[in-house]
Amino acid sequence: MEKKLTGVFAPISTPFTHDGQVDYEGLAKNVKRYAAAGLKGYLALGSNGENKSLSNKEKLLVLETIIQNKGADQTVMSGCIFESTAESIEMGLEMCKRGADFLTLLPPCYFKKQMTDDVLLRYFSDVADAVSVPCLVYNAPQYAGGVGLSPKLIRRCADHPNIVGVKDSSTGNMENILFAVKDKPGFTVVAGSVNNFFAAITMGGSGGVLSLANSFPEITVELFHLLEEKKYPEAIALNTRLLEINRAIGGAGGVAAVKAAMDMNGLVGGDPRLPLLPLTAEEKEALEAKLKGFGLFS
Amino acid sequence: MEKKLTGVFAPISTPFTHDGQVDYEGLAKNVKRYAAAGLKGYLALGSNGENKSLSNKEKLLVLETIIQNKGADQTVMSGCIFESTAESIEMGLEMCKRGADFLTLLPPCYFKKQMTDDVLLRYFSDVADAVSVPCLVYNAPQYAGGVGLSPKLIRRCADHPNIVGVKDSSTGNMENILFAVKDKPGFTVVAGSVNNFFAAITMGGSGGVLSLANSFPEITVELFHLLEEKKYPEAIALNTRLLEINRAIGGAGGVAAVKAAMDMNGLVGGDPRLPLLPLTAEEKEALEAKLKGFGLFS
Amino acid sequence: MEKKLTGVFAPISTPFTHDGQVDYEGLAKNVKRYAAAGLKGYLALGSNGENKSLSNKEKLLVLETIIQNKGADQTVMSGCIFESTAESIEMGLEMCKRGADFLTLLPPCYFKKQMTDDVLLRYFSDVADAVSVPCLVYNAPQYAGGVGLSPKLIRRCADHPNIVGVKDSSTGNMENILFAVKDKPGFTVVAGSVNNFFAAITMGGSGGVLSLANSFPEITVELFHLLEEKKYPEAIALNTRLLEINRAIGGAGGVAAVKAAMDMNGLVGGDPRLPLLPLTAEEKEALEAKLKGFGLFS
Amino acid sequence: MEKKLTGVFAPISTPFTHDGQVDYEGLAKNVKRYAAAGLKGYLALGSNGENKSLSNKEKLLVLETIIQNKGADQTVMSGCIFESTAESIEMGLEMCKRGADFLTLLPPCYFKKQMTDDVLLRYFSDVADAVSVPCLVYNAPQYAGGVGLSPKLIRRCADHPNIVGVKDSSTGNMENILFAVKDKPGFTVVAGSVNNFFAAITMGGSGGVLSLANSFPEITVELFHLLEEKKYPEAIALNTRLLEINRAIGGAGGVAAVKAAMDMNGLVGGDPRLPLLPLTAEEKEALEAKLKGFGLFS
Repeated sequence: MEKKLTGVFAPISTPFTHDGQVDYEGLAKNVKRYAAAGLKGYLALGSNGENKSLSNKEKLLVLETIIQNKGADQTVMSGCIFESTAESIEMGLEMCKRGADFLTLLPPCYFKKQMTDDVLLRYFSDVADAVSVPCLVYNAPQYAGGVGLSPKLIRRCADHPNIVGVKDSSTGNMENILFAVKDKPGFTVVAGSVNNFFAAITMGGSGGVLSLANSFPEITVELFHLLEEKKYPEAIALNTRLLEINRAIGGAGGVAAVKAAMDMNGLVGGDPRLPLLPLTAEEKEALEAKLKGFGLFS
Repeated sequence: MEKKLTGVFAPISTPFTHDGQVDYEGLAKNVKRYAAAGLKGYLALGSNGENKSLSNKEKLLVLETIIQNKGADQTVMSGCIFESTAESIEMGLEMCKRGADFLTLLPPCYFKKQMTDDVLLRYFSDVADAVSVPCLVYNAPQYAGGVGLSPKLIRRCADHPNIVGVKDSSTGNMENILFAVKDKPGFTVVAGSVNNFFAAITMGGSGGVLSLANSFPEITVELFHLLEEKKYPEAIALNTRLLEINRAIGGAGGVAAVKAAMDMNGLVGGDPRLPLLPLTAEEKEALEAKLKGFGLFS
Repeated sequence: MEKKLTGVFAPISTPFTHDGQVDYEGLAKNVKRYAAAGLKGYLALGSNGENKSLSNKEKLLVLETIIQNKGADQTVMSGCIFESTAESIEMGLEMCKRGADFLTLLPPCYFKKQMTDDVLLRYFSDVADAVSVPCLVYNAPQYAGGVGLSPKLIRRCADHPNIVGVKDSSTGNMENILFAVKDKPGFTVVAGSVNNFFAAITMGGSGGVLSLANSFPEITVELFHLLEEKKYPEAIALNTRLLEINRAIGGAGGVAAVKAAMDMNGLVGGDPRLPLLPLTAEEKEALEAKLKGFGLFS
Repeated sequence: MEKKLTGVFAPISTPFTHDGQVDYEGLAKNVKRYAAAGLKGYLALGSNGENKSLSNKEKLLVLETIIQNKGADQTVMSGCIFESTAESIEMGLEMCKRGADFLTLLPPCYFKKQMTDDVLLRYFSDVADAVSVPCLVYNAPQYAGGVGLSPKLIRRCADHPNIVGVKDSSTGNMENILFAVKDKPGFTVVAGSVNNFFAAITMGGSGGVLSLANSFPEITVELFHLLEEKKYPEAIALNTRLLEINRAIGGAGGVAAVKAAMDMNGLVGGDPRLPLLPLTAEEKEALEAKLKGFGLFS
């Protein structure tokens, strides 16, 4: 199981055509390019995929497109992100049918005050019980209205036979999660960001779902190989570079900036869906200048 | 316009049958009881209505049920709460078709960091431009992942010809909102909670969407009348009592407690949908004892 | 006891001379003016008094100056705000010697993570045990690094024989505190701001420590009398006006704006001590224009 | 300058005797042990030193004791942590006289709302202008009521000729600070915790002020040497171990747990001053068992 989660994943973005439809062809093109770049796989329908801006029907078509175009050895996690247990199960089952290898479960958060550890564990367990593929819980308070998963809760989740790992996109918590699940060697910890990828890989995690892989997949794969081969001086230097690139893109503005950087690097990026606004021409120019400064293209 | 928003509204809850289906008959019964109690109308599909636990199809059926069973003079606002502009417009148009008098718009929040005032104003304007009934913006950071609407942003919204009011469920902000829109006399301010209802009505607001009206509609209407008739000593005494009752229910646990109190008072409450858990038998007993202590039933 | 806390208090500001020394003469002048205006008394050494910018020696001289110049019936609370239990006791005893009627205790907050309810109760109890005048606990998370006092903790404090009340400057919590201590009729609740003064007085509180009383004492006293006499229509109108004035001053910038408004109204305001910066000339002009707009002076 | 900040520092704790006085002899003993362990120096009067629980007189005596007992090559930073600019300057000058090599400046935070970047820069500049030794700014929002220093503000501080570095104890921000000051090679970045020490040293920082050095100085020095010598596999293994030890102590309860661990390892720990409570006997036993489990002593 862990082998399927070992390596770098793109939390793959969803391109749209000029009239605002999902650009399935563009998506397919991106997948092929990513497969060639050595990515281990994809998180479909995650935050970078603008999950919440897709209809349920579109979600399943996006997932299908990714699965049909991926490499034979590539792994697909599918973001199963709903506020209602019933909808999570219903849609999760559809995702299983389409061939997702794993489901990634973000906690519900609309009724934040009620989301105690017991309620969250029940939610994760209900979904994991009902679906036919293994699940990862997803710790990303920034996308869940401030509802985070404590190391203690993650450890409790690890006792469920069908919850096999955690994707952690929180800040400064990676090692505490790894320590909390040390006694569960089958439970996999995946970094959710370049910011905690180095820590994850060097302290027992298996891989990373890296937003940066959307626009610059090759260098993220390179970092993973350096870490795997324990070439630390080179890994540290490359990691530092990737953190700085990632900060430049993040600072320029979330998914819109990721997509702009994809366009700059020959991938199919395009504009995000409303309410997200695209970068302005000036913002794109500034970002391009920065990325050129990193020698990413000329 | 303001007249249609003058009075007490129930943010009406959605009852479910024992097998977890929407109980449309129970809902109809509740509406009739509320109409008889003197409520001015309903917020359909709000937080108390477990909006996020209903499919889009169910949402429209719930709205239809409310509209078909309401009194002739009653007003229906419909909660239009989606993360994507396109879905808000699509579903908002369906709600208009079903006869909603107003749409209530909660800000998107998944990409919280990107939700600047400019992005939010664009979102509200895009929806208000596209739909055929007037819109209220909805300030409830507790349900929007911490994304609140500042008095300044609300004032900017008030310049849009089809944004006619705000429902404010925030804490301690009511007067600042009223001051901010003082120069826009057509713009209506509605309290979103018993906690700011007294302040709203005495300082220029028009009405209130009161969770408490779900379980004890008569006393909320009574408070409104006392305020309308400027019977302040009686209003202050009743307001204090309602705040304490409201605190007892809120402290017992959100929507689940509202529904339990409805059951105790002869309305169709029932259990919430998962991930929300119902009150335990012990919690129900404790709540019942408290509510009896307030003399609400015997 | 409660009688001594019934009415309006100024959280009196500390004027400084042009060379940055405490202006004790100016302070004495202000006290006489306030006494004539009908204030019930003072909170010396509170937040508006720039407590943290005074040396311990200056603190005691400021307290002495206030006590020597106050009216015979006026009450003086003294802000006893330190991070260490020992220093709170040592300085609290000095304040008692100078004639303070009450001590007001803000919770320590430097080690916020350790400030559990048990630790805070122990702190308040240790100080209240050691000093010779009754104590009020002070709920103002905005000045205590986010450390607030829950209604439950306040209720526990009320069991201490020498903790006789609470000053609440939090937002939207007034009624919950009043409900929590309802069974302790000797325990006094004082509003810490115009924002919760109306609620306090109408629901069982005794008075208010109002920043606004620093610059415009007469109208705050007038509001209290209207409330005492249950002249509610007039009280509501005046309260609304005061809230708007208070917002104008607060929005212009904290203590610096309070002091600027004092200067405009013939009191001795002056500049705050660094790190606080005074208002710029432009900011003062804008504030003056607003306050003139409220008809406060011409 | 940077050389003096290269290595591991203890944010040295302040021992107290059973009757609550500062135990200067115990402090001297600890300093000698730390010097022998290879620590580069000390942060006197920091958070672990219970700065806020010492009188100003005690602060200076603590500083003197440390300076008189330190090794000839050891560096002493002195925590200059006050809410008022004047007191920071006055006490900062005293610290300079006693021989502090650097002052470490935490931002004021009582008037949090007023603490804009401009006000903070003015504060840091005023102090740095007035004192005779170089200053570091100290980014620790957890101890400053939530007032943090953004990378942008830190970069602005770096332009001041007498602000020569930053001590960063925030979470997940280390690389962003390093990137922000990359163009100021003389500006030194020091980690404030084991949590960001590895990142600091591998990406351009000079040293670390490590709470863990209070109880287990030798292993923190060992980690620094491994990093200096680029023995990364060993450094990663040891770093992981130290993070886990640090988590065990931190989880057991702040300064009280640090002191208990010091006692267990033959240093002079003792109890913290009130309001901090010592660990209970049970908590000490549990911590001791954990630390034995790490093989730190037998």
